[in-house]
Amino acid sequence: MPMKKRALRVAGTGMTLPGRPVTAREIDARAGLPEGWTAQHSGVLTRHFSDGESAIQLGARAVTEALRDAGLKLEDLDAIVSVSGTMHQPIPSNAALLAGELGPGTEGMRTFDINSTCLGFLTGMDLVSAQLAAGSFRRAVLVASELASVGLDWTEAESCSILGDGAAAVIIEAVEPEAGGIGPGVAAAAFGTWARGAALTEIRGGGSGQPAGLWETSRPADYLFHMDGRAVFKLAAELLPDFVRTLFSKHGFSWQDFDLIIPHQASLTSLALLRRRLGIPEERFMIYAQDYGNTIAASIPMGLHLAMKSGRVKGGSRVLMIGTSAGFSLGALVLDL
Amino acid sequence: MPMKKRALRVAGTGMTLPGRPVTAREIDARAGLPEGWTAQHSGVLTRHFSDGESAIQLGARAVTEALRDAGLKLEDLDAIVSVSGTMHQPIPSNAALLAGELGPGTEGMRTFDINSTCLGFLTGMDLVSAQLAAGSFRRAVLVASELASVGLDWTEAESCSILGDGAAAVIIEAVEPEAGGIGPGVAAAAFGTWARGAALTEIRGGGSGQPAGLWETSRPADYLFHMDGRAVFKLAAELLPDFVRTLFSKHGFSWQDFDLIIPHQASLTSLALLRRRLGIPEERFMIYAQDYGNTIAASIPMGLHLAMKSGRVKGGSRVLMIGTSAGFSLGALVLDL
Repeated sequence: MPMKKRALRVAGTGMTLPGRPVTAREIDARAGLPEGWTAQHSGVLTRHFSDGESAIQLGARAVTEALRDAGLKLEDLDAIVSVSGTMHQPIPSNAALLAGELGPGTEGMRTFDINSTCLGFLTGMDLVSAQLAAGSFRRAVLVASELASVGLDWTEAESCSILGDGAAAVIIEAVEPEAGGIGPGVAAAAFGTWARGAALTEIRGGGSGQPAGLWETSRPADYLFHMDGRAVFKLAAELLPDFVRTLFSKHGFSWQDFDLIIPHQASLTSLALLRRRLGIPEERFMIYAQDYGNTIAASIPMGLHLAMKSGRVKGGSRVLMIGTSAGFSLGALVLDL
Repeated sequence: MPMKKRALRVAGTGMTLPGRPVTAREIDARAGLPEGWTAQHSGVLTRHFSDGESAIQLGARAVTEALRDAGLKLEDLDAIVSVSGTMHQPIPSNAALLAGELGPGTEGMRTFDINSTCLGFLTGMDLVSAQLAAGSFRRAVLVASELASVGLDWTEAESCSILGDGAAAVIIEAVEPEAGGIGPGVAAAAFGTWARGAALTEIRGGGSGQPAGLWETSRPADYLFHMDGRAVFKLAAELLPDFVRTLFSKHGFSWQDFDLIIPHQASLTSLALLRRRLGIPEERFMIYAQDYGNTIAASIPMGLHLAMKSGRVKGGSRVLMIGTSAGFSLGALVLDL
């Protein structure tokens, strides 16, 4: 049974980048790669790396931008929801730290973190839209803010060439549902995890399983990000066709129903292959990782922000956001603007 | 406006403890405290510390127990939701790792983490009950699994004396809503964060703000848990009366409406003081930290499990779960069994 549409509107979006653009050539030099390797293999020409700004400061700037975009004040928010795939510190939550960074205007506001690595924004939209529909609160900001740069293993060319830092914030608010499922809102969502791929994308150390306190007896690489890109691609290629088919048949969708498809910018080469395999029309498939890299959970909401600001989508557009994440997980969410 | 009741039933619960009971005297010895200090100051007579079992293994055992209690198979679940306040490893999510530990029966199931430190179970019940009501899925397990012991700073007597390891899993499933708001489900919920208290309870190191890689130039204590118990108590005492008054007046509640009040077992001494200050009837106020300590996000669902298994609550009972968390946050949720 197709889900009941959850009426909401995107009131404002913001996107922030820390530090300065780092070129593919700089990555080549730092990782000891032949000149041209990063640009050729990853397609990511620039990405930003923080030069000291924290994920909390970066995320708070994105919230402030989104508030300005929406014409709202901080006090107009009911909830701050972090959907980042990484944490600033283990305790308290990212969202509580964001509230502190944003200032006293957040007193008494609700805060919590949702984490499904690169799919955090889609999981967050799904969970928070149901809260809006249930009347728990009227307006929330979803924030993804990621400093991938601090977790890079410079001996792993693949991940160093594609990851970047960045943040995005999206303010959503409840609106009156319109009859017949028209009007803005979340029209469909689907998620699944195939944990046989859990070890393909990881940071092993830093939690209770291998605490930072074991640093002296651990390999430093244990505390850094690692991925087996080839195996991830293989799993995505195996699972995505069925995942999409199920979603489409449940709701009667075809690719033509979407004005824009925003994929998680995991890897440009994988995206090109998967787009062809799934038969997605190229002109509706949004690619922006060449300028920013893969910014973990910030990647998809950055795409939404860029698409809205450039006029590529507008009120009445139907957008499919879809992606893979560590887990190994797949997720998709259909948003009517 | 009171929220619409979200119909659901608790299908089964499970609770697991790692390692063996550690006595207050052992804590005295390890922390270099005078004999009797821990028992007298914390009231926690025993707590469990893991001797190698991971939070994921411990949590998976709790899920298996809850499935047995519910008479369900792993494949009957639609979603695995981690509500832990700590992570096993930074990437992927706790829930994906739990799916992997539980085995191939979880293939394709939905997984995600919700984190609001000690209030994770209440936030999870709130978010997931709205998903059940919205028809996203029918049945989910919420799992909190915590190894507080790995983050203890043995020079901080207060936190070492109260924290313990443990896990709890609660399976909830959608049921048909009954007319007039009767029948089982979530009847009310309230949450708020006052981030001026964000630094009162923290683990600063181990995230992107102070990565494990800075270990050699950091103080080891930065990667361990710290709290200012006195300041937390002061903030709780300042904020709780208004928080409770607002919740009660919105829904027309009085303390007599609840068959049982399960507080987060933050600290026995604070709980006794807050109970009197709020005028909570002692015979309805559940205390169990003397046997388990404060098990972070596992604390409240452990209380629900213990209350259900001991017959202290049953079908038709109304339970108020309420607590404080790092953030500084307050949360409350009313569950009709």
